[in-house]
Amino acid sequence: MPKKNAFYAQSGGVTAVINASACGVIQAAKVEPKIAKVFAGHNGIIGALNEELIDTSKETACTINQLLHTPSGAFGSCRYKLKSLADNRAEYERMIDVFQAHNIGYFFYNGGGDSQDTTYKLSEYCKQVGYPLQCIGIPKTIDNDLPFTDNCPGFGSVAKYVAISTKEAALDVASMSASSTKIFILEVMGRNAGWIAASAGLAAEQEGDAPHMILFPEITFNREKFLTQVNRTVKKYGYCVIVASEGTQDQSGQYLSGSSTKDAFGHLQLGGVAPNLAEMIKRKFGYKYHWAMADYLQRSARHIASKTDVDQAYALGEAAVALAVDGKTGVMPTIVRGKGKKYSWSIGEASLSTVANVEKKLPRDFISRDGWHITDRAREYLSPLIRGEDYPPYKRGLPVYARLKKVMTTKKLGKYRQD
Amino acid sequence: MPKKNAFYAQSGGVTAVINASACGVIQAAKVEPKIAKVFAGHNGIIGALNEELIDTSKETACTINQLLHTPSGAFGSCRYKLKSLADNRAEYERMIDVFQAHNIGYFFYNGGGDSQDTTYKLSEYCKQVGYPLQCIGIPKTIDNDLPFTDNCPGFGSVAKYVAISTKEAALDVASMSASSTKIFILEVMGRNAGWIAASAGLAAEQEGDAPHMILFPEITFNREKFLTQVNRTVKKYGYCVIVASEGTQDQSGQYLSGSSTKDAFGHLQLGGVAPNLAEMIKRKFGYKYHWAMADYLQRSARHIASKTDVDQAYALGEAAVALAVDGKTGVMPTIVRGKGKKYSWSIGEASLSTVANVEKKLPRDFISRDGWHITDRAREYLSPLIRGEDYPPYKRGLPVYARLKKVMTTKKLGKYRQD
Repeated sequence: MPKKNAFYAQSGGVTAVINASACGVIQAAKVEPKIAKVFAGHNGIIGALNEELIDTSKETACTINQLLHTPSGAFGSCRYKLKSLADNRAEYERMIDVFQAHNIGYFFYNGGGDSQDTTYKLSEYCKQVGYPLQCIGIPKTIDNDLPFTDNCPGFGSVAKYVAISTKEAALDVASMSASSTKIFILEVMGRNAGWIAASAGLAAEQEGDAPHMILFPEITFNREKFLTQVNRTVKKYGYCVIVASEGTQDQSGQYLSGSSTKDAFGHLQLGGVAPNLAEMIKRKFGYKYHWAMADYLQRSARHIASKTDVDQAYALGEAAVALAVDGKTGVMPTIVRGKGKKYSWSIGEASLSTVANVEKKLPRDFISRDGWHITDRAREYLSPLIRGEDYPPYKRGLPVYARLKKVMTTKKLGKYRQD
Repeated sequence: MPKKNAFYAQSGGVTAVINASACGVIQAAKVEPKIAKVFAGHNGIIGALNEELIDTSKETACTINQLLHTPSGAFGSCRYKLKSLADNRAEYERMIDVFQAHNIGYFFYNGGGDSQDTTYKLSEYCKQVGYPLQCIGIPKTIDNDLPFTDNCPGFGSVAKYVAISTKEAALDVASMSASSTKIFILEVMGRNAGWIAASAGLAAEQEGDAPHMILFPEITFNREKFLTQVNRTVKKYGYCVIVASEGTQDQSGQYLSGSSTKDAFGHLQLGGVAPNLAEMIKRKFGYKYHWAMADYLQRSARHIASKTDVDQAYALGEAAVALAVDGKTGVMPTIVRGKGKKYSWSIGEASLSTVANVEKKLPRDFISRDGWHITDRAREYLSPLIRGEDYPPYKRGLPVYARLKKVMTTKKLGKYRQD
C-alpha cells in the first residue's frame, strides 16, 4: 500500500500542551508505515486553504522532541470556523484540492468544540465526494468543556497554574492583611464554563485557606450576597481571596466585565471582572484591594505544566494516528478515567457527530450549596489532573522552547481566493 | 557571657524569598552560642510594639526548613514606618521596654529602604540611651532599589517570573496573531524604578523576540512615539508584545494608570497602565489586544524562584547573625558581585547611615537609546540574577509551603497604647 501524507493543524486558543499533541502525532507518524510526511498547517486550517504547509520532516528530531515542553501553537493557530457545506462549498473543495495535490490521506485537527465540528463536517464531505481522508479530531481546550472525554488537554495545566497562583498570592495577602491589603481578586478564563475557576479551589487544603470565594459562570452573581460574604470572610479571617471567572454574569445575563468587543466566532471578548468587583468592595467597605488578571499567562504557563496533562496530550496525538491508520474517520480519541480509587486513565474514542458543538458545563454538584466553593466531588475530579510537575529544560535561567524552521513545502496550486 | 534573645521582623511588601532570609537567621542563630531564642515580630515591627512575639523555637526544625521554599512573610509583615525620634520618642521607648522584658539583644529587620531607615534610627537611639542592641538590617525588596548592594533578595525571583511569563505569553500571541490578537501587554510592578520591567527584556534572546517594547518609569511616556513604535512592530513581526511598568508616566508626571478617567461608556477606568495602553492602541489601529496584570502573582511566585535569589536571601540572613554577634550595629549585609567574567558573589557590609532612604534607579545605560529596550549592559547585570531553578517540594500537584504554629511568648508588659 502506497504511503500517504498527513495534515495536522492547531486551532483556536492555544495551550501549554497542544504542542505535546503535535509531538505525539509527528513521532507516531514517523514510525507508522502507512504515513509518509506530516505537513502542519501554517496558522491552522488557514494553512490548508492557502496551501501553506509546513514540512515537519525538515525539523530536527531534537526540535520535534522539544515540542513536548513548548507552550502555545508552534505551527500557528487561528480562530477560523469553516462555514457549513451549504454556505461555502468552495472552502471544502479547495481543501480537498490541496490535500489531493499533496497526497494527503490523513487529517488531524487539534482543537476545541468548533474544530471538532469542522473535522466532522470535513469527514462527511469527504464521504460524499468519495475522497479518501481519515479525519481525526484531537481534543484541546483549556475550558475543559468538550463532552465524552473525561477532561481536555490544556485544562490540567491551567488548573495547576491557577491553583498554585491562588495559593501563592493568598500567602502574600495573608501576611500583609493586618495593616494593608485585605482583598485580593484573581480573574481567570472560562467564558461559559467554570472549570478553571473551580480549579483554584484546590488551593484550599485546610479550613480557612484561600480562595475564600469563587465566582462561577454557572452561578448568577448577586451583588448583595456577594458583598455580605466578602465582609463575613474579612471579619472571620482578616482577609478575603476571591477567584472570579471572566464569565461571571448577573441575573440579567450581563457579564460583570462589561466589555462589548467580539472575536471572530462572535464570542464576546471579556476582561475586567476583577477590577469591577474590587471597586464594588472598596466603595462599600473601604477595604484596600489588589487584583490580578492572569490572561494569557495562565494558558501558556508551560513552566509549571501538569505532568498528567502533558502525558495525556502526547498520548492523544499518538492515538489519533493509530485511529487514522486504522481507517477511522469523524472520530476523536478521548481520555477515559479508570474506575479504581487510585487515578488512572486510558484512551477511548468518541464520534464527532455527537461531540461537535456540545458544551460541558461544571456540574451543579461540583459547586457547594452556597455557590462560593467547590465540593469534595469536584476535588476528586480535579485533583489528579494537576498532578506531577513536568519542568522544561532551562538555560541561563530561562526555559528552552522549540524554535521551528517552518520550511514550507512547494506550492502546487494557484492562490486561493476567498469569496 | 549570658545568652541573649534575638528579634526578627519582616517589613513592607513581601517576596518569594524573604522567608529564606528568615530561615537563614533562625538556623544560624540556633547554632550560635551567644543567641538563645529568636522571636519573630507578629506582623512585623508592630509585633514589637504590641509585644506579640512569635517564639520560633516552638516550630519544628522541619517547618523552619520549609521557610526556605515558602513565599510571602510567614510571620506577617506590615507597612509601618517608625517616626523620627523627635516626633515619637514613645515608640522607641516602648520597643526597648519590650526588648528588655524579653532579654533581646539582637534586632534583625528584613525590609526595603524604609526598614533600613528604621533600623538605623533604632541603632542610634540605643546608643543614645545605652541599651545594648545590635541592630542589623537585612535587605529585601522586589524593587531592587537599595544602594550599596549589587542586588536585593526578592528581585531575582520576580525578574525570573516576569521574563518567563513574557516569553510564554509572547509565544501564545505569536501563534495567534495572523488572525487574532496582535497586541499583548503585561503590566509589572516597580513604581519608581524600572528594574522589574527591565528584567522582561531577558526574554528576548534573538532578533524579533518579545518583548518588543518595554515601558520604564525612567523614560517619559510619549503617546505619539509609542503608537508609532507599536504599529511599526506589528508591521514588522505581525504582533507586538509590550511590558509596561506600573510607574509609567507622561511628561506632566501623570501615571498612565490614573484611575480617574472614564471610558467611552462612562464607566470608571479602573486602574491599570496595561488596559489604558491597550485601549489607546485599539482606538488608533483597531488591533485586537489582550493584557495581563501579574500583580501579587509576580512577587509570590515561589514555584519558579531563582536559585541565585534563594541562595542569596538565605546567606544574607546567616550573615546578619554573624554581624550581630560580632558586635556590629546599624549595618546591613550586602551582595557583592565578583569581578570575574563568570558570575560570582560574596557577602559585604554597608552602613545604614548611608543606605537609608536612598533609591537606586535603573541606570540610563541599561536602557537602549530609543528607550524601548534594555542594553547588553543591563543583560549582563540581570541575567545571573535569574539563574537556577529552586523548585519547592510538591504534594498532590501543589507546592508544600510552611504552616507555622505561631506560638506567642507570654506577654510581660501592659498593653501598648499608641498616641
